[in-house]
Amino acid sequence: MINIGKKKIGGPGWRNQNRISDELLKNLYGQQASQYFNQGDPNPFVFSDSRSFDLIELEQLLQAVGWGRRPLRRVKRALDNSLLKVGLWKHDKSFPRLIGFARCTGDGFIDATIWDVAINPVYQGSGLGKQLMSYLMRSLKREGIKRVTLFADADVIIFYKRQGWVLEPKGNKCAFWYSN
Amino acid sequence: MINIGKKKIGGPGWRNQNRISDELLKNLYGQQASQYFNQGDPNPFVFSDSRSFDLIELEQLLQAVGWGRRPLRRVKRALDNSLLKVGLWKHDKSFPRLIGFARCTGDGFIDATIWDVAINPVYQGSGLGKQLMSYLMRSLKREGIKRVTLFADADVIIFYKRQGWVLEPKGNKCAFWYSN
Repeated sequence: MINIGKKKIGGPGWRNQNRISDELLKNLYGQQASQYFNQGDPNPFVFSDSRSFDLIELEQLLQAVGWGRRPLRRVKRALDNSLLKVGLWKHDKSFPRLIGFARCTGDGFIDATIWDVAINPVYQGSGLGKQLMSYLMRSLKREGIKRVTLFADADVIIFYKRQGWVLEPKGNKCAFWYSN
Repeated sequence: MINIGKKKIGGPGWRNQNRISDELLKNLYGQQASQYFNQGDPNPFVFSDSRSFDLIELEQLLQAVGWGRRPLRRVKRALDNSLLKVGLWKHDKSFPRLIGFARCTGDGFIDATIWDVAINPVYQGSGLGKQLMSYLMRSLKREGIKRVTLFADADVIIFYKRQGWVLEPKGNKCAFWYSN
Protein backbone atom coordinates (compact mmCIF):
# COMPACT_ATOMS: atom_id res chain seq x y z
CA MET A 1 0.00 0.00 0.00
CA ILE A 2 1.37 3.37 -1.00
CA ASN A 3 0.02 6.15 1.17
CA ILE A 4 0.97 9.39 -0.56
CA GLY A 5 -0.99 11.33 2.07
CA LYS A 6 1.56 10.42 4.75
CA LYS A 7 4.50 11.72 2.76
CA LYS A 8 6.22 14.45 4.72
CA ILE A 9 9.50 16.28 4.90
CA GLY A 10 12.12 14.00 6.34
CA GLY A 11 10.08 10.86 5.56
CA PRO A 12 11.13 8.10 3.21
CA GLY A 13 9.07 9.32 0.22
CA TRP A 14 10.69 12.73 0.35
CA ARG A 15 14.09 11.17 0.66
CA ASN A 16 13.70 9.20 -2.54
CA GLN A 17 13.11 12.37 -4.55
CA ASN A 18 16.55 13.69 -3.73
CA ARG A 19 18.35 10.37 -3.59
CA ILE A 20 21.40 10.23 -5.86
CA SER A 21 21.27 7.31 -8.31
CA ASP A 22 23.81 4.55 -7.59
CA GLU A 23 25.58 5.30 -10.86
CA LEU A 24 25.91 9.04 -10.24
CA LEU A 25 27.00 8.39 -6.64
CA LYS A 26 29.86 6.16 -7.81
CA ASN A 27 30.82 8.52 -10.62
CA LEU A 28 30.94 11.58 -8.38
CA TYR A 29 32.18 10.11 -5.11
CA GLY A 30 33.79 6.73 -5.81
CA GLN A 31 33.09 3.03 -5.42
CA GLN A 32 32.36 2.81 -1.66
CA ALA A 33 30.45 6.09 -1.39
CA SER A 34 27.42 6.11 0.88
CA GLN A 35 24.64 8.71 1.03
CA TYR A 36 22.86 9.71 4.21
CA PHE A 37 19.85 11.91 4.86
CA ASN A 38 20.01 14.06 7.92
CA GLN A 39 16.98 15.34 9.81
CA GLY A 40 15.37 18.35 8.14
CA ASP A 41 17.83 18.58 5.28
CA PRO A 42 16.41 17.84 1.81
CA ASN A 43 19.74 17.01 0.18
CA PRO A 44 21.88 13.98 0.94
CA PHE A 45 25.23 13.98 2.67
CA VAL A 46 27.80 11.68 1.12
CA PHE A 47 30.62 9.74 2.79
CA SER A 48 33.48 8.51 0.65
CA ASP A 49 36.91 6.98 1.17
CA SER A 50 37.99 7.40 -2.44
CA ARG A 51 36.98 10.88 -3.64
CA SER A 52 40.04 13.13 -3.73
CA PHE A 53 40.28 16.30 -1.68
CA ASP A 54 40.71 19.92 -2.58
CA LEU A 55 43.55 20.74 -0.17
CA ILE A 56 42.47 24.36 0.31
CA GLU A 57 38.92 23.28 1.14
CA LEU A 58 40.27 20.64 3.57
CA GLU A 59 42.48 23.18 5.34
CA GLN A 60 39.53 25.58 5.63
CA LEU A 61 37.50 22.82 7.27
CA LEU A 62 40.29 21.94 9.71
CA GLN A 63 40.79 25.58 10.60
CA ALA A 64 37.04 26.02 11.11
CA VAL A 65 37.27 23.44 13.91
CA GLY A 66 40.13 25.40 15.44
CA TRP A 67 43.24 23.58 14.29
CA GLY A 68 46.49 25.33 13.48
CA ARG A 69 47.53 26.11 9.94
CA ARG A 70 49.91 23.55 8.41
CA PRO A 71 52.00 23.85 5.24
CA LEU A 72 49.90 22.48 2.36
CA ARG A 73 52.83 20.52 0.88
CA ARG A 74 53.28 18.72 4.17
CA VAL A 75 49.54 18.04 4.43
CA LYS A 76 49.49 16.63 0.89
CA ARG A 77 52.34 14.23 1.67
CA ALA A 78 50.76 13.22 4.96
CA LEU A 79 47.52 12.40 3.11
CA ASP A 80 49.40 10.44 0.45
CA ASN A 81 50.95 8.34 3.24
CA SER A 82 47.72 7.81 5.15
CA LEU A 83 46.07 4.42 5.19
CA LEU A 84 42.58 5.81 4.69
CA LYS A 85 41.02 9.24 4.16
CA VAL A 86 37.29 9.75 4.58
CA GLY A 87 35.42 12.83 3.47
CA LEU A 88 31.87 13.93 4.15
CA TRP A 89 30.31 16.13 1.51
CA LYS A 90 27.06 18.05 1.47
CA HIS A 91 25.88 16.95 -1.94
CA ASP A 92 25.45 19.36 -4.79
CA LYS A 93 25.67 18.19 -8.40
CA SER A 94 28.02 20.94 -9.49
CA PHE A 95 29.71 21.92 -6.22
CA PRO A 96 29.75 19.33 -3.41
CA ARG A 97 30.94 20.96 -0.20
CA LEU A 98 33.38 19.23 2.15
CA ILE A 99 31.95 19.44 5.67
CA GLY A 100 33.61 16.49 7.40
CA PHE A 101 36.89 14.61 7.42
CA ALA A 102 38.88 11.89 9.17
CA ARG A 103 41.98 9.90 8.31
CA CYS A 104 43.95 6.90 9.51
CA THR A 105 47.58 5.98 9.60
CA GLY A 106 48.88 2.53 10.43
CA ASP A 107 50.27 -0.66 9.00
CA GLY A 108 46.87 -1.88 7.82
CA PHE A 109 47.33 -5.34 9.32
CA ILE A 110 47.82 -4.97 13.04
CA ASP A 111 47.17 -1.33 13.84
CA ALA A 112 45.31 1.69 12.55
CA THR A 113 45.21 5.08 14.27
CA ILE A 114 42.56 7.70 13.57
CA TRP A 115 43.50 11.38 13.23
CA ASP A 116 41.93 14.70 12.33
CA VAL A 117 38.26 13.83 12.89
CA ALA A 118 36.43 17.04 12.00
CA ILE A 119 32.87 18.15 11.32
CA ASN A 120 32.21 21.74 10.23
CA PRO A 121 30.82 23.52 13.34
CA VAL A 122 27.66 24.52 11.40
CA TYR A 123 26.78 20.83 11.06
CA GLN A 124 27.86 19.62 14.48
CA GLY A 125 25.40 18.15 16.97
CA SER A 126 23.18 16.46 14.40
CA GLY A 127 24.74 13.00 14.42
CA LEU A 128 26.98 13.42 11.37
CA GLY A 129 30.14 12.83 13.44
CA LYS A 130 28.77 9.50 14.61
CA GLN A 131 27.89 8.57 11.00
CA LEU A 132 31.37 9.58 9.86
CA MET A 133 32.95 7.30 12.46
CA SER A 134 30.63 4.42 11.47
CA TYR A 135 31.59 4.82 7.83
CA LEU A 136 35.29 4.98 8.72
CA MET A 137 35.09 1.89 10.92
CA ARG A 138 33.24 -0.04 8.17
CA SER A 139 36.07 0.83 5.77
CA LEU A 140 38.66 -0.37 8.28
CA LYS A 141 36.76 -3.58 9.04
CA ARG A 142 36.67 -4.39 5.31
CA GLU A 143 40.48 -4.44 5.50
CA GLY A 144 40.35 -6.92 8.40
CA ILE A 145 42.08 -4.66 10.90
CA LYS A 146 42.15 -6.05 14.46
CA ARG A 147 42.69 -2.96 16.58
CA VAL A 148 42.01 0.71 16.03
CA THR A 149 43.29 3.48 18.26
CA LEU A 150 42.87 7.21 18.61
CA PHE A 151 43.81 10.08 20.91
CA ALA A 152 40.58 11.65 22.11
CA ASP A 153 40.56 15.35 23.00
CA ALA A 154 39.14 16.02 26.47
CA ASP A 155 35.86 17.43 25.09
CA VAL A 156 35.03 14.44 22.87
CA ILE A 157 35.83 11.60 25.27
CA ILE A 158 32.10 11.02 25.92
CA PHE A 159 31.45 10.96 22.16
CA TYR A 160 33.85 8.02 21.68
CA LYS A 161 32.78 6.25 24.87
CA ARG A 162 29.17 6.19 23.64
CA GLN A 163 30.33 4.52 20.44
CA GLY A 164 31.91 1.62 22.29
CA TRP A 165 35.52 2.78 22.41
CA VAL A 166 37.50 1.62 25.43
CA LEU A 167 39.24 4.50 27.21
CA GLU A 168 42.71 3.82 28.64
CA PRO A 169 42.49 0.00 28.66
CA LYS A 170 44.70 -1.56 31.37
CA GLY A 171 45.78 1.90 32.53
CA ASN A 172 47.35 2.86 29.18
CA LYS A 173 48.17 6.53 28.86
CA CYS A 174 48.83 8.49 25.71
CA ALA A 175 52.24 10.10 25.46
CA PHE A 176 53.23 12.89 23.10
CA TRP A 177 56.61 14.18 22.03
CA TYR A 178 56.94 17.44 20.10
CA SER A 179 59.90 18.64 18.05
CA ASN A 180 61.32 21.99 19.12
CA MET B 1 99.35 11.72 26.96
CA ILE B 2 98.46 8.05 26.79
CA ASN B 3 98.23 6.46 30.20
CA ILE B 4 98.07 2.71 29.63
CA GLY B 5 98.19 2.16 33.38
CA LYS B 6 94.70 3.59 33.77
CA LYS B 7 93.15 1.23 31.24
CA LYS B 8 90.49 -0.88 32.94
CA ILE B 9 87.50 -3.03 32.12
CA GLY B 10 84.65 -0.78 31.05
CA GLY B 11 87.02 2.09 30.25
CA PRO B 12 87.53 3.57 26.81
CA GLY B 13 90.68 1.58 26.01
CA TRP B 14 88.92 -1.68 26.66
CA ARG B 15 85.99 -0.56 24.57
CA ASN B 16 88.17 0.12 21.57
CA GLN B 17 89.45 -3.46 21.54
CA ASN B 18 85.98 -4.79 20.84
CA ARG B 19 84.74 -1.88 18.78
CA ILE B 20 83.39 -2.90 15.38
CA SER B 21 85.09 -1.08 12.51
CA ASP B 22 82.88 1.45 10.71
CA GLU B 23 83.04 -0.61 7.54
CA LEU B 24 82.03 -3.89 9.19
CA LEU B 25 79.28 -2.10 11.15
CA LYS B 26 77.74 -0.77 7.95
CA ASN B 27 78.15 -4.07 6.14
CA LEU B 28 76.54 -6.11 8.90
CA TYR B 29 73.92 -3.71 10.22
CA GLY B 30 73.31 -1.00 7.61
CA GLN B 31 74.08 2.65 6.95
CA GLN B 32 72.75 4.29 10.12
CA ALA B 33 73.84 1.55 12.53
CA SER B 34 75.21 2.68 15.88
CA GLN B 35 77.16 0.64 18.41
CA TYR B 36 76.87 1.06 22.14
CA PHE B 37 78.86 -0.40 25.03
CA ASN B 38 76.88 -1.32 28.08
CA GLN B 39 78.30 -1.46 31.60
CA GLY B 40 80.22 -4.68 32.26
CA ASP B 41 79.64 -6.20 28.84
CA PRO B 42 82.75 -6.60 26.65
CA ASN B 43 80.88 -6.82 23.34
CA PRO B 44 78.99 -3.98 21.71
CA PHE B 45 75.25 -3.71 21.27
CA VAL B 46 74.16 -2.42 17.88
CA PHE B 47 71.09 -0.33 16.98
CA SER B 48 69.95 -0.28 13.38
CA ASP B 49 66.96 0.96 11.41
CA SER B 50 67.91 -0.85 8.21
CA ARG B 51 69.02 -4.39 9.08
CA SER B 52 66.27 -6.86 8.20
CA PHE B 53 64.63 -9.08 10.80
CA ASP B 54 64.36 -12.80 11.17
CA LEU B 55 60.61 -13.01 11.82
CA ILE B 56 60.87 -16.07 14.06
CA GLU B 57 63.53 -14.37 16.20
CA LEU B 58 61.39 -11.21 16.39
CA GLU B 59 58.32 -13.17 17.48
CA GLN B 60 60.39 -14.95 20.13
CA LEU B 61 61.53 -11.60 21.47
CA LEU B 62 57.99 -10.19 21.56
CA GLN B 63 56.72 -13.32 23.30
CA ALA B 64 59.56 -13.13 25.82
CA VAL B 65 58.16 -9.76 26.93
CA GLY B 66 54.74 -11.36 27.29
CA TRP B 67 52.91 -10.38 24.11
CA GLY B 68 50.43 -12.64 22.38
CA ARG B 69 51.35 -14.74 19.39
CA ARG B 70 50.43 -13.19 16.06
CA PRO B 71 50.31 -14.83 12.62
CA LEU B 72 53.75 -14.37 11.00
CA ARG B 73 52.27 -13.41 7.62
CA ARG B 74 50.33 -10.60 9.28
CA VAL B 75 53.43 -9.48 11.21
CA LYS B 76 55.47 -9.43 8.01
CA ARG B 77 52.90 -7.24 6.23
CA ALA B 78 52.62 -4.94 9.25
CA LEU B 79 56.43 -4.51 9.24
CA ASP B 80 56.46 -3.86 5.48
CA ASN B 81 53.90 -1.08 6.04
CA SER B 82 55.65 0.45 9.02
CA LEU B 83 57.38 3.80 8.72
CA LEU B 84 60.43 2.69 10.68
CA LYS B 85 61.67 -0.51 12.33
CA VAL B 86 64.54 -0.41 14.82
CA GLY B 87 66.37 -3.46 16.06
CA LEU B 88 68.87 -3.86 18.87
CA TRP B 89 71.36 -6.68 18.46
CA LYS B 90 73.91 -8.12 20.85
CA HIS B 91 76.81 -8.19 18.46
CA ASP B 92 78.42 -11.42 17.37
CA LYS B 93 80.27 -11.66 14.05
CA SER B 94 78.58 -14.86 12.96
CA PHE B 95 75.32 -14.77 14.93
CA PRO B 96 74.11 -11.37 16.15
CA ARG B 97 71.22 -11.86 18.56
CA LEU B 98 68.10 -9.66 18.45
CA ILE B 99 67.41 -8.43 21.98
CA GLY B 100 65.40 -5.24 21.37
CA PHE B 101 62.84 -3.86 18.97
CA ALA B 102 60.52 -0.93 18.27
CA ARG B 103 58.59 0.27 15.26
CA CYS B 104 56.62 3.27 14.06
CA THR B 105 53.61 3.75 11.88
CA GLY B 106 52.46 7.11 10.58
CA ASP B 107 52.39 9.40 7.60
CA GLY B 108 56.00 10.47 8.03
CA PHE B 109 55.19 14.17 7.71
CA ILE B 110 52.76 15.11 10.44
CA ASP B 111 52.50 12.10 12.71
CA ALA B 112 54.42 9.03 13.78
CA THR B 113 53.24 6.53 16.37
CA ILE B 114 55.56 4.14 18.19
CA TRP B 115 54.55 0.50 18.75
CA ASP B 116 55.99 -2.73 20.11
CA VAL B 117 58.87 -1.33 22.16
CA ALA B 118 60.54 -4.42 23.61
CA ILE B 119 63.77 -5.32 25.37
CA ASN B 120 64.52 -8.96 26.17
CA PRO B 121 63.86 -9.33 29.95
CA VAL B 122 67.44 -10.61 30.49
CA TYR B 123 68.75 -7.21 29.35
CA GLN B 124 66.14 -4.98 30.99
CA GLY B 125 67.06 -2.46 33.66
CA SER B 126 70.48 -1.58 32.26
CA GLY B 127 69.52 1.47 30.19
CA LEU B 128 69.22 -0.26 26.82
CA GLY B 129 65.54 0.69 26.53
CA LYS B 130 66.42 4.36 26.94
CA GLN B 131 69.18 4.01 24.30
CA LEU B 132 66.75 2.27 21.94
CA MET B 133 64.27 5.16 22.30
CA SER B 134 67.07 7.72 21.72
CA TYR B 135 68.14 5.94 18.55
CA LEU B 136 64.54 5.70 17.33
CA MET B 137 63.89 9.40 18.02
CA ARG B 138 67.10 10.39 16.19
CA SER B 139 65.90 8.41 13.17
CA LEU B 140 62.50 10.15 13.29
CA LYS B 141 64.07 13.59 13.73
CA ARG B 142 66.19 13.01 10.62
CA GLU B 143 62.89 12.71 8.72
CA GLY B 144 61.72 16.07 10.12
CA ILE B 145 58.70 14.68 11.94
CA LYS B 146 56.91 17.23 14.13
CA ARG B 147 55.00 15.09 16.60
CA VAL B 148 55.46 11.56 17.84
CA THR B 149 52.89 9.66 19.88
CA LEU B 150 52.66 6.37 21.73
CA PHE B 151 50.34 4.46 24.03
CA ALA B 152 52.26 3.78 27.23
CA ASP B 153 51.41 0.66 29.25
CA ALA B 154 50.69 1.43 32.91
CA ASP B 155 54.03 -0.01 34.10
CA VAL B 156 56.23 2.05 31.75
CA ILE B 157 54.59 5.46 32.16
CA ILE B 158 57.46 6.64 34.42
CA PHE B 159 60.02 5.42 31.85
CA TYR B 160 58.55 7.70 29.17
CA LYS B 161 57.94 10.61 31.54
CA ARG B 162 61.64 10.63 32.48
CA GLN B 163 62.55 10.90 28.81
CA GLY B 164 60.53 14.06 28.34
CA TRP B 165 57.32 12.64 26.94
CA VAL B 166 54.17 14.59 27.79
CA LEU B 167 51.47 12.37 29.26
CA GLU B 168 47.87 13.16 28.31
CA PRO B 169 48.46 16.72 27.04
CA LYS B 170 45.31 18.88 27.39
CA GLY B 171 43.43 15.99 28.94
CA ASN B 172 43.78 13.72 25.89
CA LYS B 173 42.87 10.12 26.53
CA CYS B 174 43.77 7.12 24.45
CA ALA B 175 40.86 5.16 23.05
CA PHE B 176 40.97 1.60 21.72
CA TRP B 177 38.56 -0.35 19.59
CA TYR B 178 38.95 -4.09 19.09
CA SER B 179 37.42 -6.25 16.37
CA ASN B 180 35.28 -9.11 17.63
